[in-house]
Amino acid sequence: MLKGEIIAVGTELLLGQIANTNAQFISSRMAEIGVPIYFHDTVGDNADRLKEVISIAKKRSNIIIITGGLGPTEDDITKDVLAEIINKKLILDVPSNNRIIEFFKQRKVIMTDNNKKQAMVIEGSDIFKNEYGLAVGNGIEYEGVYFILLPGPPSEMKPMLVNYVIPLVRDKYKGNIFYSEVMRFMGIGEAALEEKIIDLIKNQTNPTIAPLANDGEVTIRITANEKNEQRAIELIKPVEAEIHNRLANFHYGNGNESIEYTVYKLLLQSNLTISISESCTGGLVGSKFTNIAGSSKVYHGGVICYTNKIKKDVLNVPAEIIAKHGSVSKETAKLLAENTLKIFDTDLAIGITGIAGPDSVEDKPVGLVYIAISEKGKETNVKELNFSGNREVIQSRAAKQVFYLLWKRLTERLI
Amino acid sequence: MLKGEIIAVGTELLLGQIANTNAQFISSRMAEIGVPIYFHDTVGDNADRLKEVISIAKKRSNIIIITGGLGPTEDDITKDVLAEIINKKLILDVPSNNRIIEFFKQRKVIMTDNNKKQAMVIEGSDIFKNEYGLAVGNGIEYEGVYFILLPGPPSEMKPMLVNYVIPLVRDKYKGNIFYSEVMRFMGIGEAALEEKIIDLIKNQTNPTIAPLANDGEVTIRITANEKNEQRAIELIKPVEAEIHNRLANFHYGNGNESIEYTVYKLLLQSNLTISISESCTGGLVGSKFTNIAGSSKVYHGGVICYTNKIKKDVLNVPAEIIAKHGSVSKETAKLLAENTLKIFDTDLAIGITGIAGPDSVEDKPVGLVYIAISEKGKETNVKELNFSGNREVIQSRAAKQVFYLLWKRLTERLI
Repeated sequence: MLKGEIIAVGTELLLGQIANTNAQFISSRMAEIGVPIYFHDTVGDNADRLKEVISIAKKRSNIIIITGGLGPTEDDITKDVLAEIINKKLILDVPSNNRIIEFFKQRKVIMTDNNKKQAMVIEGSDIFKNEYGLAVGNGIEYEGVYFILLPGPPSEMKPMLVNYVIPLVRDKYKGNIFYSEVMRFMGIGEAALEEKIIDLIKNQTNPTIAPLANDGEVTIRITANEKNEQRAIELIKPVEAEIHNRLANFHYGNGNESIEYTVYKLLLQSNLTISISESCTGGLVGSKFTNIAGSSKVYHGGVICYTNKIKKDVLNVPAEIIAKHGSVSKETAKLLAENTLKIFDTDLAIGITGIAGPDSVEDKPVGLVYIAISEKGKETNVKELNFSGNREVIQSRAAKQVFYLLWKRLTERLI
Repeated sequence: MLKGEIIAVGTELLLGQIANTNAQFISSRMAEIGVPIYFHDTVGDNADRLKEVISIAKKRSNIIIITGGLGPTEDDITKDVLAEIINKKLILDVPSNNRIIEFFKQRKVIMTDNNKKQAMVIEGSDIFKNEYGLAVGNGIEYEGVYFILLPGPPSEMKPMLVNYVIPLVRDKYKGNIFYSEVMRFMGIGEAALEEKIIDLIKNQTNPTIAPLANDGEVTIRITANEKNEQRAIELIKPVEAEIHNRLANFHYGNGNESIEYTVYKLLLQSNLTISISESCTGGLVGSKFTNIAGSSKVYHGGVICYTNKIKKDVLNVPAEIIAKHGSVSKETAKLLAENTLKIFDTDLAIGITGIAGPDSVEDKPVGLVYIAISEKGKETNVKELNFSGNREVIQSRAAKQVFYLLWKRLTERLI
C-alpha cells in the first residue's frame, strides 16, 4: 500500500516567517494522482533532528518527499543527511554543474565555490532538472522507500514537481492509487449538513464520506478505496448523486472551484454584468472578483463608500434616509444597490452595508449586515444577516455571502 | 530547556485543500515570546496515527500545541485521543455548553446533539474560551509536558492563542525564554539590505541578526541569548539603533505592525483623510485599509474602476486621454487620483492602474503599474512600477506599494 510523507526542512518555517505552502501544493498534486499523504513534518536546518525525522518517516512511509536544504550555504544539509542515512556517496552531476557555471557567466558574476554544492547528487539517483534555479532535484529508492529531494523556493519546486516528479511517480506506482471527489456547499452549517446525511456517513465503507467546515462553507470528500479509476468513479458517482439530492440547495460546486469563480462563470454564461458598492466589506468583494483573470467581462467595479458622506455625495443616498433609518439599514442597502445600478449601468448591482465591529454603530449590533441585489426592471431584494466573529471574520463572511446570494439568484434564473 | 512542537490534525491538510497557516501563526507568536519550536507535524483525522504522532512528540518536546479536531463531527477526535494517552476523562464544561445553547437559541436554530461535544474538556485542564466559535480550548500538563488543544479554524484559533494561551505560557515559563525584536523594511531587497549591514551580521554573537525577505518586504530579527528581559533589551537596543541608522529610509516599523497600519496611524496623527480609486488592484487596497478597525476616520472610500467605461463615466477620465495614452498610463493614473480627490473631497487621493495579467493590455507588459498620489494644492506625483510574478503576486505587491509610497510621503511631511 502506498504511503506518502512530506518533510520540509528550514528553520524559517519553525520561526513562522513563512508558511509551508509547499506541503499543501505537493499534497494536492499527489491527491490528484491518487498518492495518499499520511504525514507532513517540518524540521529546522539541523542534521541530528533531520536524521531523526527521516528515520521515523522511513519506518511508516514508502514515498518520502523532502523540500528545502538543497542550496549553496552551510546550513543546506539535506543531501548530506540523506546520503549518510542510506549509505550512498554524493557525486557531481556534470550537466547541472555546467548549467550553474553558465548561469554565472551569463550574469557576468563570479561564481563562488559553494555554488557547486547545488550540482551534487546522490549516486545512482534520478535527477530532476531545476528550470528556475540552480539546485538540482534527486530521487532515490532505498529499502523499498522512494526518496524525493526538491528545492525549497516554491517557484523552483512547483515546476520540478509538476514536470518531472509527478510523471515519474504516476508511472512508477501505476495501479496502486485511490480516487476521491470533493463537493462544496454554502448556506448550511457543518452539523446541519451532517444531520442530513448521517445515515450515509454511519454506513460508509467504500467510498468514505468526510464533511469539513472551513471559512463559511462546508465540503464533503468522497473517497473510493479502489485503484481502478473507472471502478472508483462508479463507486463515487451514486453516493455523490444521493448527497446532491439531499443538499441540492446548498451544493454549489465540486473540486477546487471557489464560490466566486462559480458566480463568475454563471454571470458569463448568462451574459450579465455586475457592479458592487461596498461599505462594511471595504473592497473585499471587488478584490475577490478581480482575483479572477478575465473578471472585467462581468464585474465592472463599484464604489467603496466607507463614510456616510460618500454614501450621500457619490451614491446619492438621501440624507433623510440615513437620518431616519441609519446607514446600516435595509433602506440604505436598497438605495446603494439601486443607485449603483444606475451609475455603473450594469445588469445587476449590489449594495452592502453593515457593522464589522469592534464597536457597534447606530445602536445596532456588531455583525449585522444588509446585502441588496438590484436588477434592471425587477424589484430589489434585501437580505438581513447576522454574523458572529471578529472584524476580519465578519468582513470575510459577508463577502462570501454576496457570492452565495448571487449563486442562488443566478441558478434560480437558469431553472 | 524549552522545546516546542506543533501538531496539526486534519485530513484536509494532507489532501492539500488548505495550507497549515496555523503552524506559521503559532510559531511566529511563540518566537516572539521566546519559545523555540523544533518540529511541526501534520496528521489526518485518524486515531492511531494521531496517537503515534503525539507519542513521538511527547518524547522530544515539552510544550505541544495541537490544532484541529475539536469540532462536533464524528471525525473530530483530538480530545478523545489525548485523553486516552494521558489517562484522563473528558467532562462537560458547563459554561462552554451554556454558550453553545445560547448560540443556537439566539439564531433560532435547533441545536443538534453532536454540538455538545464541543463543550467537553479534559478533566483538570486549563480552559481557553472560544470567543469566535463553539469548540472550547484546553491546556493540560502531563509528565512534564504541557499540551495545548486549539480549534482548527484560524479565526477561532488566533484570538484564543493571543488572548489566553500566550499570556499563560509566558507566565508559566517566565525566566526560561529568549527575547527578540523584529524590524520591518520596505523599498529595499534582501540582498541590498544585507550588504548594508554585512559587517554586523558577520560579527554577530549576541544578539544574533537574521534578515528574511517575504511578500514584498524584508524583516530583520534580532534575538538576544538572554533570559532576563531587561538585560535582553539592553543587548538588543544598540544593535537595533545601529541598523536603523543605516536603513532609516526603509525602516517603517517593528513587531507585527503592517505597513497599512503604520500608514493609518500616520494619517490619523496628521489629521488627513484619503480616498483611493483602484483599477488593477480591484478593491484590495480598500480592503487592506478597512481591515483596520476605525479606519473610516482616515479612509473614506473610492471607486473600483475595473473597466474603461467606469474610468470615463464615473471618474471623468476623458475618452481622448485613454485613447491617446491608454488606460494603463501615467496620464490616466494622474486623472484617476485628481478626480477621486475632487469627487470624494479628501485631503489625499490615490489612483492605481496597471496590468495584473495573465494577458498584456494595450501592448504593455504584465506587471506594469502606475500609482498616482494627488493632494489638495500640490502637484500630483505618479510612480511607474514593474512587478514580476503571477496575477495574485502583482496585485498584492501593487497594493503594498501604495502603502509604502504613502508612508514615504507622510514621514517626509513630518520631518
